Amino acid sequence: MKIVVVGKESPAVLAASDGAEVRFVDSLDDAADIFGEMEAVIGRVRPEVLAKAPRLRWVHSPSAGVDADLTPEMLASPVVLTSSAGNGGISLAEHSILLMLMLNRDVPRWMRAQADHRWDHFVHSELAGLTVGIYGLGNSGIDLAQKAKAFHMRVLGVRRRPELPTPYVDELVELDRLLAESDFVVVTTPRTPSTAGIIDRDAFARMKKSAYYICISRGGIADDDALLEALQTGQIAGAGLDAHGVEPLPAESPFWSLPNVIVTPHNGATSTGTRRRSQEIIAENLRRFIAGEPLNNVVDKSAGY
Amino acid sequence: MKIVVVGKESPAVLAASDGAEVRFVDSLDDAADIFGEMEAVIGRVRPEVLAKAPRLRWVHSPSAGVDADLTPEMLASPVVLTSSAGNGGISLAEHSILLMLMLNRDVPRWMRAQADHRWDHFVHSELAGLTVGIYGLGNSGIDLAQKAKAFHMRVLGVRRRPELPTPYVDELVELDRLLAESDFVVVTTPRTPSTAGIIDRDAFARMKKSAYYICISRGGIADDDALLEALQTGQIAGAGLDAHGVEPLPAESPFWSLPNVIVTPHNGATSTGTRRRSQEIIAENLRRFIAGEPLNNVVDKSAGY
Repeated sequence: MKIVVVGKESPAVLAASDGAEVRFVDSLDDAADIFGEMEAVIGRVRPEVLAKAPRLRWVHSPSAGVDADLTPEMLASPVVLTSSAGNGGISLAEHSILLMLMLNRDVPRWMRAQADHRWDHFVHSELAGLTVGIYGLGNSGIDLAQKAKAFHMRVLGVRRRPELPTPYVDELVELDRLLAESDFVVVTTPRTPSTAGIIDRDAFARMKKSAYYICISRGGIADDDALLEALQTGQIAGAGLDAHGVEPLPAESPFWSLPNVIVTPHNGATSTGTRRRSQEIIAENLRRFIAGEPLNNVVDKSAGY
Repeated sequence: MKIVVVGKESPAVLAASDGAEVRFVDSLDDAADIFGEMEAVIGRVRPEVLAKAPRLRWVHSPSAGVDADLTPEMLASPVVLTSSAGNGGISLAEHSILLMLMLNRDVPRWMRAQADHRWDHFVHSELAGLTVGIYGLGNSGIDLAQKAKAFHMRVLGVRRRPELPTPYVDELVELDRLLAESDFVVVTTPRTPSTAGIIDRDAFARMKKSAYYICISRGGIADDDALLEALQTGQIAGAGLDAHGVEPLPAESPFWSLPNVIVTPHNGATSTGTRRRSQEIIAENLRRFIAGEPLNNVVDKSAGY
């Protein structure tokens, strides 16, 4: 059984690959000689490679969100796609709280004062008592809900599959109510055909003028033009943006210089912990694949995650 | 019964003052005509006023930390001193997590990149799995412990009175062990004769080189010279300082410009929530005083808080 792993040789992955022939490559193109034989790939597979790999049964994406993996060819293929969902949830939830606190307390003001050696003492708000609305209750959303409860916040959530457990969430609601009642609207949902562009001009109009929009999963769930307009006109109070409609965010993007926006470069989950968990997820799925057991994190291709 | 309240007229305080003659003043000096009759003061009382107020039985400090109220004259006086402890605990715990996240993820680097419109993507750490050592398990310390558990951290704590409850704390330890094992040493203890200067050169030498020092309660618990040296020599990784040895921090202080230090201007608790809770604490104690019931937050003058 031939398996190709795109990435550095990892002891955890090697330990899990007992009985299989695993080749580590820097790029999938380096395994072109065995495209016809490989049964699994840990890494991203382009459509032209998919067409050359008749024995391929399983692809594991290095990402938690698989919007980039779900090409039309992958959608049409019988290959099982699994994701790295859960690798970055904790780190993204930390990033959400960071962005919420920075906006709530106006951290940029303190940092300007520090640069000027100025004692700029002012009254700010606190998160306790406010409402966070979490759009998407997967790994990062649920972990954020847990943190928000420890911050004494009210937690509203939207979940596509409400039958799944939603610990720490005070109330599951429809998106419209979440938008209307939240002091922080946090987008943690994957980008899929049904979420792309869903936070549009009407959605921002439903939000409180004092509310902040935070996006830690994918850009493009908000319509960028509508977001920009909402921020420029004071329709909402501000935003914390880790994921962006276009990445890398171009130097000429107006989002960089809006005074009420904190921009981070799709970097919320890029932590040492995420890397460790990614290796653990891969190793466990590799062990399962070789043993013929059901895989974890199988993507529902029609749902998009 | 004459009571003087330094501060703006507050509906909550007025509602609690039934049966007493309450005068609101901008400064205690504005009540000089009734120093001889007043039985209680909500506000700070200077030694010379204390000497002129023979009927004074109760002073309520507007602060959670009463180091500034505990003059030698107050220590020697039979007047009962109560504090506003608990007003800012939640807000200070929020500030601690903010400073921890900012240091852990190098937020200043992202803010510099945003100012330059630069996409500066880098691998950072996360709080999950790290150890926070909380020196002082009062209101802010316990609330911080609760938040730290939701961040999946290990929580060590030092408490002068270990017989009191310490929820969310994994282990109560001696200060030396807390210093040695913590990735974040967070000082939440009041400044008293037994804590002033306790974080000295030896204490910093016990800390991990990768650890951060955070102070949200009072400056002067760390020796400023030792702290500066530890930061300049790389003895510790950095610091988040809301409380400072000298306040306001002078423009010429070297702390402002250390690259591994985040300075905020003793501003962690200055929130709208703290103000609301302060009024509630005052109103409840006023009600108790007038009704002859035991007061909340009575300061143990010998302990200093």
